[in-house]
Amino acid sequence: MIEKPLQLGLAGLGTVGTGVYETLFRNHELLEARAKIPYAVKKVAVRDVERVREVDIDPALLTNDWRELVDDSEIDIIIELIGGTTDAYQLVSSALAAGKPVVTGNKALLAEYGSELFRLSAEKGVPLYFEASCGGGIPIIQSLQNSLICNNVESIAGIINGTSNYILSSMEKKGMSFEEALERAKAKGFAEADPSLDINGWDAAHKALILAMLAYGTPIAPSRISVYGIERVTPTDFRFAHQLGYTIKLLVVIKHHEDTDALELRVQPSFVPRSHLLANVNGVFNAIAVKGDIVGETIFYGRGAGKNPTASAVIGDIVLAMRDRRHPDFHTGFHPYTKTLEIMPQEDTVTPYYVRFLVPSRRSGVIATIATALARHNISISSTSSTAHEEDEAAENTHNDLVFSLHACSWGSLKAALKEIVQSDCVAPHPAVFRIETFNS
Amino acid sequence: MIEKPLQLGLAGLGTVGTGVYETLFRNHELLEARAKIPYAVKKVAVRDVERVREVDIDPALLTNDWRELVDDSEIDIIIELIGGTTDAYQLVSSALAAGKPVVTGNKALLAEYGSELFRLSAEKGVPLYFEASCGGGIPIIQSLQNSLICNNVESIAGIINGTSNYILSSMEKKGMSFEEALERAKAKGFAEADPSLDINGWDAAHKALILAMLAYGTPIAPSRISVYGIERVTPTDFRFAHQLGYTIKLLVVIKHHEDTDALELRVQPSFVPRSHLLANVNGVFNAIAVKGDIVGETIFYGRGAGKNPTASAVIGDIVLAMRDRRHPDFHTGFHPYTKTLEIMPQEDTVTPYYVRFLVPSRRSGVIATIATALARHNISISSTSSTAHEEDEAAENTHNDLVFSLHACSWGSLKAALKEIVQSDCVAPHPAVFRIETFNS
Repeated sequence: MIEKPLQLGLAGLGTVGTGVYETLFRNHELLEARAKIPYAVKKVAVRDVERVREVDIDPALLTNDWRELVDDSEIDIIIELIGGTTDAYQLVSSALAAGKPVVTGNKALLAEYGSELFRLSAEKGVPLYFEASCGGGIPIIQSLQNSLICNNVESIAGIINGTSNYILSSMEKKGMSFEEALERAKAKGFAEADPSLDINGWDAAHKALILAMLAYGTPIAPSRISVYGIERVTPTDFRFAHQLGYTIKLLVVIKHHEDTDALELRVQPSFVPRSHLLANVNGVFNAIAVKGDIVGETIFYGRGAGKNPTASAVIGDIVLAMRDRRHPDFHTGFHPYTKTLEIMPQEDTVTPYYVRFLVPSRRSGVIATIATALARHNISISSTSSTAHEEDEAAENTHNDLVFSLHACSWGSLKAALKEIVQSDCVAPHPAVFRIETFNS
Repeated sequence: MIEKPLQLGLAGLGTVGTGVYETLFRNHELLEARAKIPYAVKKVAVRDVERVREVDIDPALLTNDWRELVDDSEIDIIIELIGGTTDAYQLVSSALAAGKPVVTGNKALLAEYGSELFRLSAEKGVPLYFEASCGGGIPIIQSLQNSLICNNVESIAGIINGTSNYILSSMEKKGMSFEEALERAKAKGFAEADPSLDINGWDAAHKALILAMLAYGTPIAPSRISVYGIERVTPTDFRFAHQLGYTIKLLVVIKHHEDTDALELRVQPSFVPRSHLLANVNGVFNAIAVKGDIVGETIFYGRGAGKNPTASAVIGDIVLAMRDRRHPDFHTGFHPYTKTLEIMPQEDTVTPYYVRFLVPSRRSGVIATIATALARHNISISSTSSTAHEEDEAAENTHNDLVFSLHACSWGSLKAALKEIVQSDCVAPHPAVFRIETFNS
């Protein structure tokens, strides 16, 4: 047991910060016994030191200036939980520059400034820990950095936004519309007042960027990721998905193509085979499937957000940081960046597809027109069906649903075919298009 | 980058040893770049140095005496993959005594001698790494030791024997008998010539002991775990399980009871709700659900055995060992033993139950007799049904199946009730009894 306690500086006492502070105290004895390193919280930076808090904290610890944490020479490790990207960027970069290791759970920060901060961390030899930035309490970052270290990662596929998964689960289990399911999520506290980043896919995209940067050691500009949200998923698509043996999940897909050494990188609602474990991840839970060349397929499942699960990840990182602090000549795990990979143009990515067209009833020759256009682009049809078997409001309208399952083709050729089909005027504009994930390669 | 390569001594060149050796070479560049520590394999101990091997290895590295690895002052880390418990025990204990960290995947060794070896490791301050001893490539040990370090583990439930899970999956999906499914597993190479330890539950029990010792920091004698295998699971039970919304899995259950500070510890085929992720773990895959007081529920899934998945875990440990070797004043993660927990008597453990009696057709008063006996022991019935709906050979016999779903009760009271029921002679001896796992507490 090393005698002098390591001094922690905590910035941010919001939901997660409170969970971290409480757990550092509640499980203090357990943690010191296991980590074999004593610690103390030296200072806590908050926006308003006067505010009444649910957590019992010595007012003498509080400061409203996070710079004090960096400037305090006795503070060994900084924990950044203030969120946002402005102050957080200043805090993290100045702490690293000052030689203080940083633990952060800030996914927006790392998605936007990750390339820069990881480079700074490497240059200064000062570690940056970020388990809590992805998948809440799921130990995906440490597993990639340590346990799975000998693996070339072939692919990562994951459900990493709890709000959207809760909404999709409600739509699936209760037949709700997207709007109804969103209201339900808000009522249950699983969607924020402004849930835009959750439902438009960008929260998942931030986490995907972090996972991809880590697994492949490459910097990636956020603009290079293809992102679609769940706003346009309908109960009709869920019914067809079920008929075909699938469910719909907001999926992050990261795949390394060995032949071109390029990365496929996308976030979108996708058809997932019902027999796959990811199809059975419901509610606010997250799951991340990692395929490595040595380990094969692994899946990590757990609570992807929330006060305590995220605090668990932060504290796992704090303990690592404390250990590494005692031996400052190495980092935990591997860090970006060892190389720069190309990001595949979306048009070149290949999957099977589900396409649902809205077609005026009794219009003849529609299937022929569609099939001809698909054939012209060398896209072959796996199956077709029309109007879901279940009673459907749409059936009383003058339009029918016409669904095509397509064998694997590039998004570029499908996009071109769809453009021709829509221009032929035999279907309504904006067909519903979902990738079908096969998890085979 | 530290200049002098760390020297590894590998004992055993069977399936996993070969996978480790190959991966240390194939992904050498990747590993050194990530770990930032150079390494070399100095010696490899095998039983027969003359044997022709599938792996390309310099004969000068080979020795048929594992003692040479311990005696070689230049060897920094020992990797024990010889299996068995006799030589392996000598090797691991002498290496630890000599101050050499050990990486092992030997579950039988740790189940039998774990208490002693962990104590030796702690006394000598020489770490013992054992990720590969449980769950193959699944990073469950490092996650418990590191990422989840702030958690009091409330429970662990897992499918950690691939052979038995493959057999049960075949029975479920293909309606096979146990014997047919076992033959199929052998034909596919998923069961060894002598699969006793896999099907009688003891392989899973070894791993359960390791998980329990680690999660609770307590020594446990192997005799204290209750173990039932899958030999008596029948297609009839699968049919009833399906009707009731369950499947059957060989489940390891470890649960801490806070009120008595005692551990519940058992391995047995159990009813698992089909909606739970563990019910959807099929074939040779393993999955381990860990509930922590901070993180909530997490699940780790992957290949629980095999050359490469196990090698992945071994190499994750080797890298940790190399890092720790540079800083010998701390261990990775926490080690047993911090305290000694009581193991709950099986009779005191409480779950709902499924019981299937074989009853002579047209015998009257049987339900009354059974219900009366159950009531006498304060066991309440949740539902009853007779003979599976599907066409059933048993239906042509003179016996019917009579199934009771029981609300949670202690095994002690159910055992007493069953004894009375069987003695009353209204049912055949040896009713089928399965616990129903609820995953609620």
